Amino acid sequence: MDTPDVLAWRDGYIEALDQTLLPHQVRVRRITTVDQLVDAITTLAVRGAPVLGVAGAFGVALAVRQGGREGWDRARLDAEVKRIADARPTAVNLRREVSAVASRMPEGRAAVEAAALALAGTAVTASEQISRRGAAYLRQACGGRRLRVHTHCNTGSLACLGWGTALGVIRALHADGALEHVIVDETRPLLQGARLTCWELGQLGIEHRLACDGAAPFLISQGLADAVVVGADRVAANGDVANKIGTYSLALAAQAAGIPFLVAAPESTLDAATPSGSAIPIELRADEEVTGSAAPAGTRALNYAFDITPAGLVSAVVTEDRVIPRFPAQS
Amino acid sequence: MDTPDVLAWRDGYIEALDQTLLPHQVRVRRITTVDQLVDAITTLAVRGAPVLGVAGAFGVALAVRQGGREGWDRARLDAEVKRIADARPTAVNLRREVSAVASRMPEGRAAVEAAALALAGTAVTASEQISRRGAAYLRQACGGRRLRVHTHCNTGSLACLGWGTALGVIRALHADGALEHVIVDETRPLLQGARLTCWELGQLGIEHRLACDGAAPFLISQGLADAVVVGADRVAANGDVANKIGTYSLALAAQAAGIPFLVAAPESTLDAATPSGSAIPIELRADEEVTGSAAPAGTRALNYAFDITPAGLVSAVVTEDRVIPRFPAQS
Repeated sequence: MDTPDVLAWRDGYIEALDQTLLPHQVRVRRITTVDQLVDAITTLAVRGAPVLGVAGAFGVALAVRQGGREGWDRARLDAEVKRIADARPTAVNLRREVSAVASRMPEGRAAVEAAALALAGTAVTASEQISRRGAAYLRQACGGRRLRVHTHCNTGSLACLGWGTALGVIRALHADGALEHVIVDETRPLLQGARLTCWELGQLGIEHRLACDGAAPFLISQGLADAVVVGADRVAANGDVANKIGTYSLALAAQAAGIPFLVAAPESTLDAATPSGSAIPIELRADEEVTGSAAPAGTRALNYAFDITPAGLVSAVVTEDRVIPRFPAQS
Repeated sequence: MDTPDVLAWRDGYIEALDQTLLPHQVRVRRITTVDQLVDAITTLAVRGAPVLGVAGAFGVALAVRQGGREGWDRARLDAEVKRIADARPTAVNLRREVSAVASRMPEGRAAVEAAALALAGTAVTASEQISRRGAAYLRQACGGRRLRVHTHCNTGSLACLGWGTALGVIRALHADGALEHVIVDETRPLLQGARLTCWELGQLGIEHRLACDGAAPFLISQGLADAVVVGADRVAANGDVANKIGTYSLALAAQAAGIPFLVAAPESTLDAATPSGSAIPIELRADEEVTGSAAPAGTRALNYAFDITPAGLVSAVVTEDRVIPRFPAQS
């Protein structure tokens, strides 16, 4: 793609592609303060669980720089770093990578920046490993034919650096000549599927069709997909998966249709400290994202940004290191 | 409501509230030709399975009038009547009521118009009977508490004349003091839930929250609804239900959560001539309804307007005459 980097550290500040403006505008945000970074994360200009992890890592480096310019004491620096970690609650990657890089702060600015950059590099490598391992899993699970794959939200280069997670699996299938086409959920309310995934698939020359979220279970029931593959924002210790709202309905439909439901995510998404899905904090976002201009003025909404898919509906979780089959406790 | 009639026969022409403009504009279309009626039906200015039945009945009266003015022969009249019956394929009500009123054409214009008006009156009465019977069913199924009900699309006065089907059940629960609140799916792509159901519930003073279609199964899984109630466009002989796209995911979620999934529809929606859901024609509408302005230019979609819920997921179908429990063949 001849588009700017999704997220990059520019020796003192962050550059981020503004994902709220895609696909119609390609604009880069220059982020020089913690305030700007927190705004970019909460408005979803910077989004996607693995990218949030890298943004958290870069964010610590950014806070150290800003603290140096503005003479913050350690308490202030810690408070600013915590603001980054807390900007969104569901994806464990953000909090985890902030914490990993922040642990290097006593070693000074250079160590922090090196740790953040190393982590970004690791994310790119992990993404390709996830993609190839996930593609191999699906080819084996579905037999030798060219696959029709249903996916949700955006889990490609925009969400992950590198190839992506679920969309990386799709990209790897395509590279292997093993993909027939992709069905993409539009992913209301913010339409990451319609805006971002269709854009990425178009750039990659991968055949795809867009569907409303409510249509997905029907399309699956009609035999239009050989497999479902999605990303994750957090996988609990028992294998329950938090992912973009709408994921659970795909898992129910995949089970009813008897097709694989694969979760593709880096190891950093696995959260041994959270026993089950019910302990994962689910972000509740503003009513207006749902009501928009369609509903009567004053209409209230229930706008959970993520849902929980019970482990028993997940065929496997694929990471950069391994394929984790159905978690035993839920079988 | 101090709003115009949803659909009315005005001694020679049809007046219809334009449902594509609600809730922000209340405008009545004056329909004097078959072309105008077919346009109103295909663009969903006139919509909702029971209203489509009445529109079909009035449509035959309209065709007879237009034929009289323009000197149509019987073949032309039959062809125009068939165009009305075929304007949308999934809801059986349209075709059925066109056929019922068309059978009176040999008796002359007055007989046709009397039959159409009688049918509209029957629809209003049926709607109240469905509403009361459905409310009684849910109160019994869910115990004595005030109910939290999840619904989809629009099935109220705008869709049915009278109280409605699923929304009529909700209205009857409210009238009985047995309703806590309603969760309404926005119902992409055309947002009938956000635009029409929220508007009707607001007019009725019924507490409600709007949710994205993809969120519905998660909300149900979290115990936020005591029951799901939806309408139907056609119920096959084996009990499979065609209804607005997104319905099937609610049925899967209701089953997983162990709550009732009730279908409310007039007897005219039951189609003994269609053996099962796989024989119901599912309308495929234009890609642009889904792609809108969000997706990249040229994106293609899969825009089925309805889905099929297998009979085994349906707790009961309630009509103006009876409660039909889970169809035996699917139990």
